[in-house]
Amino acid sequence: MLGLMLTNYDILIVGLSFQAPDSGRMAAPVEFEGVETSLKARLQGKEYDEVRRILYGRAYPELQISSDARQMAEKGGYEVQGYEISAQPEQLRAPRKVRVACIQNSIVLPTTAPVEEQRNAIHRKVGGMVEAAALAGANIVCMQETFTMPFAFCTRERLPWTEFAESAEHGPTTKYFSELAAKYGIVIILPILERDESKDDVIWNAAVVISHTGKVIGKSRKNHIPRVGDFNEATYYMESTIGHPVFQTAFGKIAINICYGRHHPQNWMMFALNGAEIIFNPSATTGDLSEPLWGIEARNAAIANHCFTVAINRVGTEHFPHEFTSGNGLPAHHDFGHFYGSSYIAAPDGSRTPALPRTKDGLLIAELDLNLCRQTKDTWGFRMTQRLDMYAKLFEKAACPDYKPDIRKET
Amino acid sequence: MLGLMLTNYDILIVGLSFQAPDSGRMAAPVEFEGVETSLKARLQGKEYDEVRRILYGRAYPELQISSDARQMAEKGGYEVQGYEISAQPEQLRAPRKVRVACIQNSIVLPTTAPVEEQRNAIHRKVGGMVEAAALAGANIVCMQETFTMPFAFCTRERLPWTEFAESAEHGPTTKYFSELAAKYGIVIILPILERDESKDDVIWNAAVVISHTGKVIGKSRKNHIPRVGDFNEATYYMESTIGHPVFQTAFGKIAINICYGRHHPQNWMMFALNGAEIIFNPSATTGDLSEPLWGIEARNAAIANHCFTVAINRVGTEHFPHEFTSGNGLPAHHDFGHFYGSSYIAAPDGSRTPALPRTKDGLLIAELDLNLCRQTKDTWGFRMTQRLDMYAKLFEKAACPDYKPDIRKET
Repeated sequence: MLGLMLTNYDILIVGLSFQAPDSGRMAAPVEFEGVETSLKARLQGKEYDEVRRILYGRAYPELQISSDARQMAEKGGYEVQGYEISAQPEQLRAPRKVRVACIQNSIVLPTTAPVEEQRNAIHRKVGGMVEAAALAGANIVCMQETFTMPFAFCTRERLPWTEFAESAEHGPTTKYFSELAAKYGIVIILPILERDESKDDVIWNAAVVISHTGKVIGKSRKNHIPRVGDFNEATYYMESTIGHPVFQTAFGKIAINICYGRHHPQNWMMFALNGAEIIFNPSATTGDLSEPLWGIEARNAAIANHCFTVAINRVGTEHFPHEFTSGNGLPAHHDFGHFYGSSYIAAPDGSRTPALPRTKDGLLIAELDLNLCRQTKDTWGFRMTQRLDMYAKLFEKAACPDYKPDIRKET
Repeated sequence: MLGLMLTNYDILIVGLSFQAPDSGRMAAPVEFEGVETSLKARLQGKEYDEVRRILYGRAYPELQISSDARQMAEKGGYEVQGYEISAQPEQLRAPRKVRVACIQNSIVLPTTAPVEEQRNAIHRKVGGMVEAAALAGANIVCMQETFTMPFAFCTRERLPWTEFAESAEHGPTTKYFSELAAKYGIVIILPILERDESKDDVIWNAAVVISHTGKVIGKSRKNHIPRVGDFNEATYYMESTIGHPVFQTAFGKIAINICYGRHHPQNWMMFALNGAEIIFNPSATTGDLSEPLWGIEARNAAIANHCFTVAINRVGTEHFPHEFTSGNGLPAHHDFGHFYGSSYIAAPDGSRTPALPRTKDGLLIAELDLNLCRQTKDTWGFRMTQRLDMYAKLFEKAACPDYKPDIRKET
């Protein structure tokens, strides 16, 4: 429904594989690859430079990706892109260069396969992408929201989907990726459907942070839960009660703002006020409704909070065995629409990387100099001028049910 | 300094008039007209549609602009653009269609001309543009920040620039435009340098709201003051102490977030929490530093707050008689760089209009159906899910000097 049918123009189309509906992936319409591919193909020279500058900010040099990582990507059929986001040299601080990677992946097996097989297949595929990231020098890797499973909340069914929920501390996904973290000395962020076995078996939408030693540092949970279109997540889990934790890793202070939290500027801000230098936004989003917002929100957060943000979206179309409706008056169907990928990284100075494709798995790596956060803070001064004490008082008043808005009329 | 020198590509360049430095406008480099012109010229068919959709959201029909308004624009040498931003029909509410206009203008006389002549010349030029807007059916018109004067704060000089400050209630600008407001039955927003004659003659950066009857409804003042580059405004005026007023006009509830306040998401949010359906952002901004942010911030505010936003930037290059430095290690110079115009209107559903040109005066008109605000609120639900009470408490804690950020480490 949400993917447009496009035909007849050469390099900009990527054909997706067509499979029978019961294979778990629908016969997808041909999807447009992405804005960057079009701009590069159609614009040239200084005209391209100006359009690119206005839309994306300063140009980044491409990062040399090691040949073994490139070979893995080629073999795995996913795209790899790398960029270098530099800062000015300082006299008293050395550069603090960190290589951050994000992974967007389609599911592997049909949604009708046994739960354990579906999860294991994703572990193997994404595990391979993590290894490619490590070979390319990545220090921190983050996956998309609930990456171990299809985004099945559109169905409003319980079984088998809730069986994908697992312990953050010692579930199979944490175990699998802790080994990779220790092996490569990298931090891995695992956005999963969490089963809190220690607290009433309640389900949460969470992200586990594994340190470079392979230990669990802690977890974050989704602060804002959507009730829009096929995003029936409020049916499955509630808003986080653990606040806005920031994780001090060997490679910088990081936080995770899960999916729908990107629509809430004050959510990003609290992570930044707790010291986050990089805020990851593992997401799952589709279609015409959210796509024009996608390039805006995480990037605005990087600007407003003088930090890096990493926006990661699922990719592909997922087909479910039982039909469901979407609260939009249209007939029942079997899929959620096309998850348009387009993962990107935004910098505090308002610049951003190109997006990964709309159409295929991808690994995006950027070498960030974290010194850029404070340099931008000192330049733009949004933190200094933010008047937080005033907004704390105003928000407190505005949150009261009897708040009288300040509306002035002609007298 | 900040304008790039571009040559040799046909339709995308607009030559600015060259004048002697002491004329008040510098010999400007040739400036790139704008992204939209390039995309329209270089992309076609469905490829153009997809790029446009991802970058700008749904396509708007063009508004029919009356021929008398078009003729005035042609005679005045400025661009006029119009769009229709519709909403779904509802059963219990009629559409609430409002035509909003914004004006971007260069100064008229050299900055060395007598203050009164400079101001009167701008009154006449912008007054004519207001009349064209009224003939095109506009109900609310807003100008750029401190539109009656050159943006002289880069100089850090007092006289003659502070002589442009005037009373919000009965200064010459309010008088001039009140007559137009009453004549055409339109609301006019006047962003001026204010002299508060009733309170110690203090200077403020303000916006006066004139009702469709020609009366002053009230005023807003700039809540966040920049200290960046040539924006030495903290030298001239302080942060507003009058909060986030919303003005109930005959055509909807409006608010004014002046310039640098667009970098502060909580500022936009307080105007929205006070009920604003349209938030105007009269601005003055230049160059490489801010341009990649320009399309992001006001649009993010429209999305996050389920309201319309109107981002208005000054246009052209202003040359000052005495040289000044810009705190960037570069030699003294006489101009602020190129104000890149690019005014636009963003809708709550994340779509936006094309921008006015980077290179010339312009009048942008959009017919908004204000019902779209509540429709988007009901669809996306950001207001319902914003957890304002939690953020009020968190911000209060975070604003304390002894706040301990929530940072978790490997144990």
